[in-house]
Amino acid sequence: MERHFDQDIDGIRQLVLRMGGIVERMIADSLRSLLERDDARAEQVIRSDKEVDVLEKETDELCLSVLARYHPMAVDLRLIAAVMKMVNDLERMGDSAVNIAQGVLLLNREPPLKPYIDLPRMAQLVQNMVRESLDSFVQRDTKLALDICRRDDQIDALYKQLFRELLTFMIEDPKTVTRALHLLLIARNLERIADHATNIAEDVIYYVEGRDIRHLGKAADLPPGSPSTGSEVPIA
Amino acid sequence: MERHFDQDIDGIRQLVLRMGGIVERMIADSLRSLLERDDARAEQVIRSDKEVDVLEKETDELCLSVLARYHPMAVDLRLIAAVMKMVNDLERMGDSAVNIAQGVLLLNREPPLKPYIDLPRMAQLVQNMVRESLDSFVQRDTKLALDICRRDDQIDALYKQLFRELLTFMIEDPKTVTRALHLLLIARNLERIADHATNIAEDVIYYVEGRDIRHLGKAADLPPGSPSTGSEVPIA
Repeated sequence: MERHFDQDIDGIRQLVLRMGGIVERMIADSLRSLLERDDARAEQVIRSDKEVDVLEKETDELCLSVLARYHPMAVDLRLIAAVMKMVNDLERMGDSAVNIAQGVLLLNREPPLKPYIDLPRMAQLVQNMVRESLDSFVQRDTKLALDICRRDDQIDALYKQLFRELLTFMIEDPKTVTRALHLLLIARNLERIADHATNIAEDVIYYVEGRDIRHLGKAADLPPGSPSTGSEVPIA
Repeated sequence: MERHFDQDIDGIRQLVLRMGGIVERMIADSLRSLLERDDARAEQVIRSDKEVDVLEKETDELCLSVLARYHPMAVDLRLIAAVMKMVNDLERMGDSAVNIAQGVLLLNREPPLKPYIDLPRMAQLVQNMVRESLDSFVQRDTKLALDICRRDDQIDALYKQLFRELLTFMIEDPKTVTRALHLLLIARNLERIADHATNIAEDVIYYVEGRDIRHLGKAADLPPGSPSTGSEVPIA
Protein backbone atom coordinates (compact mmCIF):
# COMPACT_ATOMS: atom_id res chain seq x y z
CA MET A 1 0.00 0.00 0.00
CA GLU A 2 2.85 2.40 0.86
CA ARG A 3 4.27 1.95 -2.61
CA HIS A 4 0.91 2.62 -4.27
CA PHE A 5 0.52 5.71 -2.14
CA ASP A 6 3.91 7.03 -3.25
CA GLN A 7 3.02 6.29 -6.86
CA ASP A 8 -0.25 8.18 -6.56
CA ILE A 9 1.42 11.18 -4.92
CA ASP A 10 3.96 11.15 -7.72
CA GLY A 11 1.12 10.90 -10.23
CA ILE A 12 -0.52 13.97 -8.71
CA ARG A 13 2.73 15.93 -9.02
CA GLN A 14 3.12 14.85 -12.64
CA LEU A 15 -0.42 15.95 -13.49
CA VAL A 16 0.20 19.40 -11.99
CA LEU A 17 3.40 19.78 -13.98
CA ARG A 18 1.78 18.62 -17.21
CA MET A 19 -1.05 21.07 -16.68
CA GLY A 20 1.41 23.81 -15.75
CA GLY A 21 3.45 23.16 -18.91
CA ILE A 22 0.40 23.49 -21.15
CA VAL A 23 -0.77 26.66 -19.39
CA GLU A 24 2.70 28.23 -19.61
CA ARG A 25 2.75 27.55 -23.35
CA MET A 26 -0.77 28.94 -23.78
CA ILE A 27 0.23 32.19 -22.07
CA ALA A 28 3.42 32.51 -24.12
CA ASP A 29 1.58 31.73 -27.37
CA SER A 30 -1.26 34.14 -26.65
CA LEU A 31 1.28 36.96 -26.26
CA ARG A 32 3.29 35.89 -29.28
CA SER A 33 0.09 35.85 -31.33
CA LEU A 34 -0.45 39.47 -30.24
CA LEU A 35 3.03 40.73 -31.09
CA GLU A 36 3.27 38.74 -34.35
CA ARG A 37 -0.39 39.24 -35.33
CA ASP A 38 -0.67 35.48 -35.76
CA ASP A 39 -4.29 34.25 -35.92
CA ALA A 40 -3.35 30.58 -36.22
CA ARG A 41 -1.37 30.70 -33.00
CA ALA A 42 -4.22 32.45 -31.17
CA GLU A 43 -6.61 29.78 -32.37
CA GLN A 44 -4.25 27.08 -31.13
CA VAL A 45 -4.33 28.66 -27.66
CA ILE A 46 -8.12 28.57 -27.68
CA ARG A 47 -8.10 24.89 -28.63
CA SER A 48 -5.61 23.98 -25.88
CA ASP A 49 -8.06 25.03 -23.19
CA LYS A 50 -9.92 21.72 -23.43
CA GLU A 51 -6.78 19.80 -22.46
CA VAL A 52 -6.37 21.96 -19.37
CA ASP A 53 -9.98 21.42 -18.35
CA VAL A 54 -9.59 17.65 -18.66
CA LEU A 55 -6.37 17.65 -16.62
CA GLU A 56 -7.99 19.72 -13.88
CA LYS A 57 -10.79 17.20 -13.46
CA GLU A 58 -8.35 14.27 -13.62
CA THR A 59 -6.13 15.79 -10.92
CA ASP A 60 -9.06 16.58 -8.65
CA GLU A 61 -10.30 13.02 -9.05
CA LEU A 62 -6.94 11.50 -8.18
CA CYS A 63 -6.61 13.81 -5.16
CA LEU A 64 -10.00 12.76 -3.83
CA SER A 65 -9.27 9.11 -4.45
CA VAL A 66 -5.99 9.42 -2.49
CA LEU A 67 -7.84 11.17 0.35
CA ALA A 68 -10.45 8.40 0.44
CA ARG A 69 -8.03 5.46 0.18
CA TYR A 70 -5.01 6.50 2.28
CA HIS A 71 -6.18 9.22 4.71
CA PRO A 72 -2.91 11.13 4.27
CA MET A 73 -1.67 13.25 7.17
CA ALA A 74 0.51 16.31 7.71
CA VAL A 75 2.60 17.27 4.69
CA ASP A 76 0.84 14.75 2.40
CA LEU A 77 -2.56 16.13 3.33
CA ARG A 78 -1.28 19.65 2.80
CA LEU A 79 0.09 18.66 -0.61
CA ILE A 80 -3.33 17.39 -1.70
CA ALA A 81 -5.12 20.47 -0.39
CA ALA A 82 -2.56 22.74 -2.09
CA VAL A 83 -2.79 20.86 -5.40
CA MET A 84 -6.59 21.09 -5.46
CA LYS A 85 -6.25 24.86 -5.17
CA MET A 86 -3.33 25.07 -7.60
CA VAL A 87 -5.11 23.27 -10.44
CA ASN A 88 -7.99 25.68 -10.06
CA ASP A 89 -5.59 28.61 -10.46
CA LEU A 90 -3.91 26.93 -13.42
CA GLU A 91 -7.26 26.39 -15.08
CA ARG A 92 -8.14 30.06 -14.63
CA MET A 93 -4.76 31.09 -16.02
CA GLY A 94 -5.63 29.01 -19.08
CA ASP A 95 -8.94 30.87 -19.34
CA SER A 96 -7.07 34.18 -19.21
CA ALA A 97 -4.77 33.04 -22.01
CA VAL A 98 -7.88 32.15 -24.03
CA ASN A 99 -9.31 35.61 -23.32
CA ILE A 100 -6.07 37.18 -24.54
CA ALA A 101 -6.14 35.04 -27.69
CA GLN A 102 -9.76 36.02 -28.37
CA GLY A 103 -8.79 39.69 -28.00
CA VAL A 104 -5.91 39.14 -30.41
CA LEU A 105 -8.24 37.71 -33.05
CA LEU A 106 -10.33 40.87 -32.83
CA LEU A 107 -7.28 43.17 -32.84
CA ASN A 108 -5.89 41.42 -35.92
CA ARG A 109 -8.92 42.50 -37.95
CA GLU A 110 -7.83 46.13 -37.55
CA PRO A 111 -4.62 47.99 -38.42
CA PRO A 112 -2.02 47.72 -35.64
CA LEU A 113 -2.17 50.28 -32.86
CA LYS A 114 1.32 51.31 -31.89
CA PRO A 115 2.88 51.40 -29.43
CA TYR A 116 2.17 48.52 -27.10
CA ILE A 117 3.85 50.64 -24.42
CA ASP A 118 4.91 48.46 -21.48
CA LEU A 119 2.75 45.48 -22.41
CA PRO A 120 5.65 43.26 -23.63
CA ARG A 121 7.63 44.02 -20.48
CA MET A 122 4.62 43.25 -18.28
CA ALA A 123 4.10 40.02 -20.24
CA GLN A 124 7.69 38.96 -19.63
CA LEU A 125 7.49 39.62 -15.89
CA VAL A 126 4.21 37.72 -15.60
CA GLN A 127 5.57 34.74 -17.51
CA ASN A 128 8.57 34.64 -15.16
CA MET A 129 6.19 34.56 -12.19
CA VAL A 130 4.23 31.67 -13.67
CA ARG A 131 7.32 29.61 -14.48
CA GLU A 132 8.90 30.25 -11.09
CA SER A 133 5.70 29.48 -9.19
CA LEU A 134 5.80 26.01 -10.77
CA ASP A 135 9.55 25.74 -10.04
CA SER A 136 8.92 26.63 -6.40
CA PHE A 137 6.41 23.77 -6.25
CA VAL A 138 8.80 21.22 -7.77
CA GLN A 139 11.69 22.30 -5.58
CA ARG A 140 9.58 23.05 -2.48
CA ASP A 141 11.41 26.37 -2.50
CA THR A 142 9.51 28.67 -0.15
CA LYS A 143 12.07 31.44 -0.52
CA LEU A 144 11.36 31.61 -4.24
CA ALA A 145 7.61 31.37 -3.53
CA LEU A 146 7.77 34.32 -1.15
CA ASP A 147 9.72 36.31 -3.72
CA ILE A 148 6.95 35.71 -6.27
CA CYS A 149 4.31 36.97 -3.82
CA ARG A 150 6.31 40.16 -3.39
CA ARG A 151 6.49 40.77 -7.14
CA ASP A 152 2.70 40.94 -7.50
CA ASP A 153 2.67 44.62 -6.47
CA GLN A 154 5.04 45.46 -9.30
CA ILE A 155 2.61 43.92 -11.79
CA ASP A 156 -0.31 45.83 -10.29
CA ALA A 157 1.66 49.07 -10.67
CA LEU A 158 2.48 48.27 -14.31
CA TYR A 159 -1.16 47.50 -15.00
CA LYS A 160 -2.30 50.80 -13.52
CA GLN A 161 0.25 52.67 -15.60
CA LEU A 162 -0.84 50.88 -18.79
CA PHE A 163 -4.47 51.55 -17.91
CA ARG A 164 -3.82 55.29 -17.65
CA GLU A 165 -1.82 55.41 -20.86
CA LEU A 166 -4.39 53.49 -22.88
CA LEU A 167 -7.17 55.62 -21.43
CA THR A 168 -5.31 58.72 -22.65
CA PHE A 169 -5.11 57.26 -26.17
CA MET A 170 -8.82 56.58 -26.13
CA ILE A 171 -9.72 60.08 -25.00
CA GLU A 172 -7.37 61.81 -27.43
CA ASP A 173 -8.25 59.80 -30.52
CA PRO A 174 -11.67 58.13 -30.73
CA LYS A 175 -10.43 56.03 -33.67
CA THR A 176 -8.24 54.10 -31.21
CA VAL A 177 -11.01 53.33 -28.70
CA THR A 178 -11.81 49.76 -29.73
CA ARG A 179 -8.18 48.70 -30.09
CA ALA A 180 -6.99 50.44 -26.93
CA LEU A 181 -9.84 48.83 -25.03
CA HIS A 182 -8.86 45.35 -26.24
CA LEU A 183 -5.24 45.99 -25.26
CA LEU A 184 -6.42 47.18 -21.87
CA LEU A 185 -8.38 43.96 -21.38
CA ILE A 186 -5.32 41.96 -22.41
CA ALA A 187 -3.28 43.81 -19.77
CA ARG A 188 -6.03 43.08 -17.29
CA ASN A 189 -5.80 39.36 -18.09
CA LEU A 190 -2.04 39.46 -17.58
CA GLU A 191 -2.58 41.07 -14.20
CA ARG A 192 -4.98 38.26 -13.29
CA ILE A 193 -2.49 35.62 -14.40
CA ALA A 194 0.04 37.19 -12.01
CA ASP A 195 -2.57 36.96 -9.23
CA HIS A 196 -2.98 33.26 -9.91
CA ALA A 197 0.80 32.72 -9.92
CA THR A 198 0.86 34.45 -6.55
CA ASN A 199 -1.89 32.15 -5.30
CA ILE A 200 0.16 29.14 -6.39
CA ALA A 201 3.21 30.51 -4.58
CA GLU A 202 1.09 30.93 -1.44
CA ASP A 203 -0.13 27.35 -1.78
CA VAL A 204 3.49 26.14 -2.04
CA ILE A 205 4.34 27.92 1.22
CA TYR A 206 1.29 26.34 2.85
CA TYR A 207 2.18 22.90 1.55
CA VAL A 208 5.85 23.02 2.61
CA GLU A 209 5.66 24.98 5.85
CA GLY A 210 2.04 24.67 6.94
CA ARG A 211 1.68 28.48 7.06
CA ASP A 212 -1.36 30.10 5.42
CA ILE A 213 -0.06 33.52 4.32
CA ARG A 214 -3.06 34.42 2.13
CA HIS A 215 -4.43 37.95 2.50
CA LEU A 216 -1.72 38.96 4.97
CA GLY A 217 -0.33 41.60 2.63
CA LYS A 218 -3.75 42.91 1.75
CA ALA A 219 -4.80 43.18 5.38
CA ALA A 220 -1.52 44.81 6.38
CA ASP A 221 -2.00 47.46 3.68
CA LEU A 222 -5.27 48.57 5.18
CA PRO A 223 -4.88 51.13 7.96
CA PRO A 224 -7.42 50.19 10.63
CA GLY A 225 -10.86 51.65 10.07
CA SER A 226 -10.03 53.35 6.81
CA PRO A 227 -11.12 52.17 3.38
CA SER A 228 -8.63 51.05 0.78
CA THR A 229 -9.39 53.58 -1.92
CA GLY A 230 -5.83 54.44 -2.78
CA SER A 231 -5.79 53.06 -6.30
CA GLU A 232 -6.26 55.56 -9.11
CA VAL A 233 -7.82 52.94 -11.40
CA PRO A 234 -10.24 50.25 -10.34
CA ILE A 235 -8.59 46.87 -10.07
CA ALA A 236 -11.51 45.60 -12.02
CA MET B 1 -16.34 11.03 18.10
CA GLU B 2 -19.39 10.68 15.85
CA ARG B 3 -21.02 13.60 17.62
CA HIS B 4 -17.94 15.79 17.26
CA PHE B 5 -17.77 14.92 13.59
CA ASP B 6 -21.39 15.98 13.07
CA GLN B 7 -20.72 19.19 14.95
CA ASP B 8 -17.72 19.98 12.79
CA ILE B 9 -19.61 19.27 9.58
CA ASP B 10 -22.34 21.54 10.82
CA GLY B 11 -19.71 24.16 11.69
CA ILE B 12 -18.36 24.01 8.15
CA ARG B 13 -21.85 24.55 6.73
CA GLN B 14 -22.40 27.49 9.06
CA LEU B 15 -19.12 29.11 8.02
CA VAL B 16 -20.04 28.83 4.33
CA LEU B 17 -23.41 30.42 4.98
CA ARG B 18 -21.93 33.23 7.07
CA MET B 19 -19.41 33.93 4.35
CA GLY B 20 -22.11 33.70 1.68
CA GLY B 21 -24.30 36.15 3.59
CA ILE B 22 -21.53 38.74 3.80
CA VAL B 23 -20.63 38.34 0.13
CA GLU B 24 -24.27 38.66 -0.92
CA ARG B 25 -24.54 41.89 1.04
CA MET B 26 -21.28 43.21 -0.43
CA ILE B 27 -22.54 42.62 -3.97
CA ALA B 28 -25.91 44.24 -3.25
CA ASP B 29 -24.27 47.21 -1.52
CA SER B 30 -21.70 47.74 -4.27
CA LEU B 31 -24.53 48.04 -6.80
CA ARG B 32 -26.65 50.23 -4.55
CA SER B 33 -23.64 52.51 -4.06
CA LEU B 34 -23.49 52.83 -7.86
CA LEU B 35 -27.15 53.62 -8.42
CA GLU B 36 -27.41 55.93 -5.40
CA ARG B 37 -23.95 57.48 -5.82
CA ASP B 38 -23.24 56.61 -2.20
CA ASP B 39 -19.51 56.77 -1.33
CA ALA B 40 -20.01 55.68 2.28
CA ARG B 41 -21.72 52.47 1.19
CA ALA B 42 -18.97 51.73 -1.35
CA GLU B 43 -16.35 52.21 1.37
CA GLN B 44 -18.25 49.84 3.63
CA VAL B 45 -18.06 47.16 0.91
CA ILE B 46 -14.31 47.61 0.68
CA ARG B 47 -13.96 47.25 4.45
CA SER B 48 -16.05 44.05 4.52
CA ASP B 49 -13.53 42.22 2.37
CA LYS B 50 -11.30 41.54 5.37
CA GLU B 51 -14.08 39.59 7.09
CA VAL B 52 -14.50 37.41 4.01
CA ASP B 53 -10.78 36.70 3.84
CA VAL B 54 -10.73 35.65 7.49
CA LEU B 55 -13.74 33.36 7.04
CA GLU B 56 -12.14 31.72 3.99
CA LYS B 57 -9.03 30.81 5.96
CA GLU B 58 -11.08 29.65 8.95
CA THR B 59 -13.24 27.38 6.77
CA ASP B 60 -10.24 25.89 4.97
CA GLU B 61 -8.61 25.21 8.32
CA LEU B 62 -11.67 23.45 9.71
CA CYS B 63 -12.02 21.39 6.52
CA LEU B 64 -8.41 20.21 6.73
CA SER B 65 -8.75 19.46 10.40
CA VAL B 66 -11.84 17.32 9.71
CA LEU B 67 -9.99 15.51 6.92
CA ALA B 68 -7.07 14.80 9.24
CA ARG B 69 -9.11 13.73 12.25
CA TYR B 70 -12.03 11.75 10.81
CA HIS B 71 -11.02 10.57 7.32
CA PRO B 72 -14.52 11.24 5.99
CA MET B 73 -15.77 9.12 3.08
CA ALA B 74 -18.26 9.41 0.23
CA VAL B 75 -20.72 12.28 0.61
CA ASP B 76 -18.85 13.76 3.60
CA LEU B 77 -15.59 13.79 1.69
CA ARG B 78 -17.34 15.35 -1.28
CA LEU B 79 -18.85 18.00 0.97
CA ILE B 80 -15.41 19.01 2.24
CA ALA B 81 -13.91 19.08 -1.26
CA ALA B 82 -16.86 21.12 -2.54
CA VAL B 83 -16.68 23.58 0.36
CA MET B 84 -12.96 24.18 -0.16
CA LYS B 85 -13.75 25.20 -3.73
CA MET B 86 -16.87 27.14 -2.81
CA VAL B 87 -15.15 29.39 -0.28
CA ASN B 88 -12.57 30.22 -2.91
CA ASP B 89 -15.33 31.30 -5.27
CA LEU B 90 -17.04 33.27 -2.52
CA GLU B 91 -13.79 35.05 -1.70
CA ARG B 92 -13.35 36.00 -5.37
CA MET B 93 -16.94 37.22 -5.53
CA GLY B 94 -16.09 39.46 -2.59
CA ASP B 95 -13.07 40.75 -4.51
CA SER B 96 -15.32 41.54 -7.48
CA ALA B 97 -17.70 43.46 -5.21
CA VAL B 98 -14.68 45.44 -3.94
CA ASN B 99 -13.65 46.14 -7.53
CA ILE B 100 -17.15 47.41 -8.28
CA ALA B 101 -17.08 49.62 -5.15
CA GLN B 102 -13.69 51.05 -6.15
CA GLY B 103 -15.07 51.83 -9.60
CA VAL B 104 -18.07 53.53 -7.98
CA LEU B 105 -15.80 55.78 -5.91
CA LEU B 106 -14.12 56.93 -9.11
CA LEU B 107 -17.42 57.36 -10.97
CA ASN B 108 -18.84 59.45 -8.13
CA ARG B 109 -16.16 62.08 -8.68
CA GLU B 110 -17.65 62.84 -12.09
CA PRO B 111 -21.13 63.90 -13.23
CA PRO B 112 -23.45 60.91 -13.73
CA LEU B 113 -23.39 59.21 -17.11
CA LYS B 114 -26.90 58.22 -18.12
CA PRO B 115 -28.23 55.78 -18.95
CA TYR B 116 -26.96 52.69 -17.17
CA ILE B 117 -28.64 50.73 -19.96
CA ASP B 118 -29.16 47.10 -18.88
CA LEU B 119 -26.72 47.20 -15.96
CA PRO B 120 -29.42 47.22 -13.23
CA ARG B 121 -31.20 44.29 -14.88
CA MET B 122 -27.94 42.36 -15.20
CA ALA B 123 -27.18 43.14 -11.55
CA GLN B 124 -30.55 41.75 -10.47
CA LEU B 125 -30.13 38.53 -12.43
CA VAL B 126 -26.62 38.01 -11.07
CA GLN B 127 -27.75 38.59 -7.49
CA ASN B 128 -30.50 36.01 -7.96
CA MET B 129 -27.90 33.50 -9.17
CA VAL B 130 -25.71 34.14 -6.12
CA ARG B 131 -28.57 33.78 -3.64
CA GLU B 132 -29.93 30.65 -5.31
CA SER B 133 -26.49 29.02 -5.55
CA LEU B 134 -26.29 29.28 -1.75
CA ASP B 135 -29.89 28.05 -1.43
CA SER B 136 -29.08 25.05 -3.62
CA PHE B 137 -26.22 24.23 -1.22
CA VAL B 138 -28.40 24.48 1.89
CA GLN B 139 -31.23 22.44 0.36
CA ARG B 140 -28.95 20.08 -1.62
CA ASP B 141 -31.17 21.02 -4.54
CA THR B 142 -29.38 19.85 -7.70
CA LYS B 143 -32.30 20.83 -9.91
CA LEU B 144 -31.93 24.44 -8.81
CA ALA B 145 -28.14 24.17 -9.17
CA LEU B 146 -28.46 22.95 -12.74
CA ASP B 147 -30.86 25.77 -13.52
CA ILE B 148 -28.25 28.30 -12.28
CA CYS B 149 -25.60 26.78 -14.57
CA ARG B 150 -27.94 27.23 -17.50
CA ARG B 151 -28.50 30.91 -16.71
CA ASP B 152 -24.82 31.77 -17.09
CA ASP B 153 -25.17 32.08 -20.88
CA GLN B 154 -27.86 34.71 -20.44
CA ILE B 155 -25.49 36.80 -18.33
CA ASP B 156 -22.71 36.43 -20.89
CA ALA B 157 -25.09 37.66 -23.60
CA LEU B 158 -26.13 40.67 -21.48
CA TYR B 159 -22.47 41.50 -20.84
CA LYS B 160 -21.63 41.41 -24.54
CA GLN B 161 -24.58 43.67 -25.32
CA LEU B 162 -23.55 46.15 -22.60
CA PHE B 163 -19.97 46.00 -23.85
CA ARG B 164 -21.06 46.98 -27.37
CA GLU B 165 -23.32 49.77 -26.16
CA LEU B 166 -20.72 51.29 -23.87
CA LEU B 167 -18.11 51.03 -26.61
CA THR B 168 -20.43 52.99 -28.90
CA PHE B 169 -20.74 55.74 -26.28
CA MET B 170 -16.98 55.94 -25.97
CA ILE B 171 -16.43 56.22 -29.69
CA GLU B 172 -19.18 58.77 -30.24
CA ASP B 173 -18.35 61.06 -27.34
CA PRO B 174 -14.76 61.12 -26.01
CA LYS B 175 -15.98 62.95 -22.90
CA THR B 176 -17.70 59.74 -21.80
CA VAL B 177 -14.64 57.48 -22.22
CA THR B 178 -13.50 57.31 -18.60
CA ARG B 179 -16.98 56.84 -17.17
CA ALA B 180 -18.11 54.34 -19.81
CA LEU B 181 -14.92 52.35 -19.24
CA HIS B 182 -15.55 52.17 -15.50
CA LEU B 183 -19.13 51.03 -16.13
CA LEU B 184 -17.82 48.43 -18.53
CA LEU B 185 -15.45 47.11 -15.89
CA ILE B 186 -18.31 46.99 -13.40
CA ALA B 187 -20.35 44.93 -15.89
CA ARG B 188 -17.32 42.70 -16.33
CA ASN B 189 -17.15 42.14 -12.58
CA LEU B 190 -20.83 41.23 -12.52
CA GLU B 191 -20.21 38.72 -15.27
CA ARG B 192 -17.41 37.19 -13.18
CA ILE B 193 -19.64 37.00 -10.12
CA ALA B 194 -22.13 35.01 -12.21
CA ASP B 195 -19.28 32.66 -13.22
CA HIS B 196 -18.46 32.07 -9.57
CA ALA B 197 -22.12 31.43 -8.72
CA THR B 198 -22.12 28.88 -11.54
CA ASN B 199 -18.99 27.26 -10.08
CA ILE B 200 -20.75 26.99 -6.71
CA ALA B 201 -23.77 25.39 -8.36
CA GLU B 202 -21.46 22.87 -10.07
CA ASP B 203 -19.85 22.12 -6.71
CA VAL B 204 -23.27 21.50 -5.19
CA ILE B 205 -24.06 18.96 -7.92
CA TYR B 206 -20.71 17.27 -7.31
CA TYR B 207 -21.28 17.20 -3.56
CA VAL B 208 -24.82 15.80 -3.73
CA GLU B 209 -24.61 13.48 -6.73
CA GLY B 210 -20.88 12.83 -7.13
CA ARG B 211 -21.01 14.04 -10.75
CA ASP B 212 -18.36 16.49 -11.93
CA ILE B 213 -20.14 18.54 -14.60
CA ARG B 214 -17.48 21.26 -14.92
CA HIS B 215 -16.54 22.30 -18.45
CA LEU B 216 -19.12 20.02 -20.06
CA GLY B 217 -21.03 22.94 -21.56
CA LYS B 218 -17.88 24.64 -22.75
CA ALA B 219 -16.53 21.49 -24.39
CA ALA B 220 -19.86 20.72 -26.03
CA ASP B 221 -19.94 24.20 -27.57
CA LEU B 222 -16.72 23.57 -29.43
CA PRO B 223 -17.14 21.78 -32.76
CA PRO B 224 -14.26 19.30 -33.04
CA GLY B 225 -11.09 20.82 -34.44
CA SER B 226 -12.46 24.32 -34.79
CA PRO B 227 -11.57 27.27 -32.58
CA SER B 228 -14.08 28.96 -30.36
CA THR B 229 -13.94 32.44 -31.80
CA GLY B 230 -17.65 33.06 -31.93
CA SER B 231 -17.83 35.88 -29.42
CA GLU B 232 -17.99 39.38 -30.80
CA VAL B 233 -16.29 40.83 -27.72
CA PRO B 234 -13.44 39.24 -25.84
CA ILE B 235 -14.59 37.56 -22.67
CA ALA B 236 -11.73 39.37 -21.07
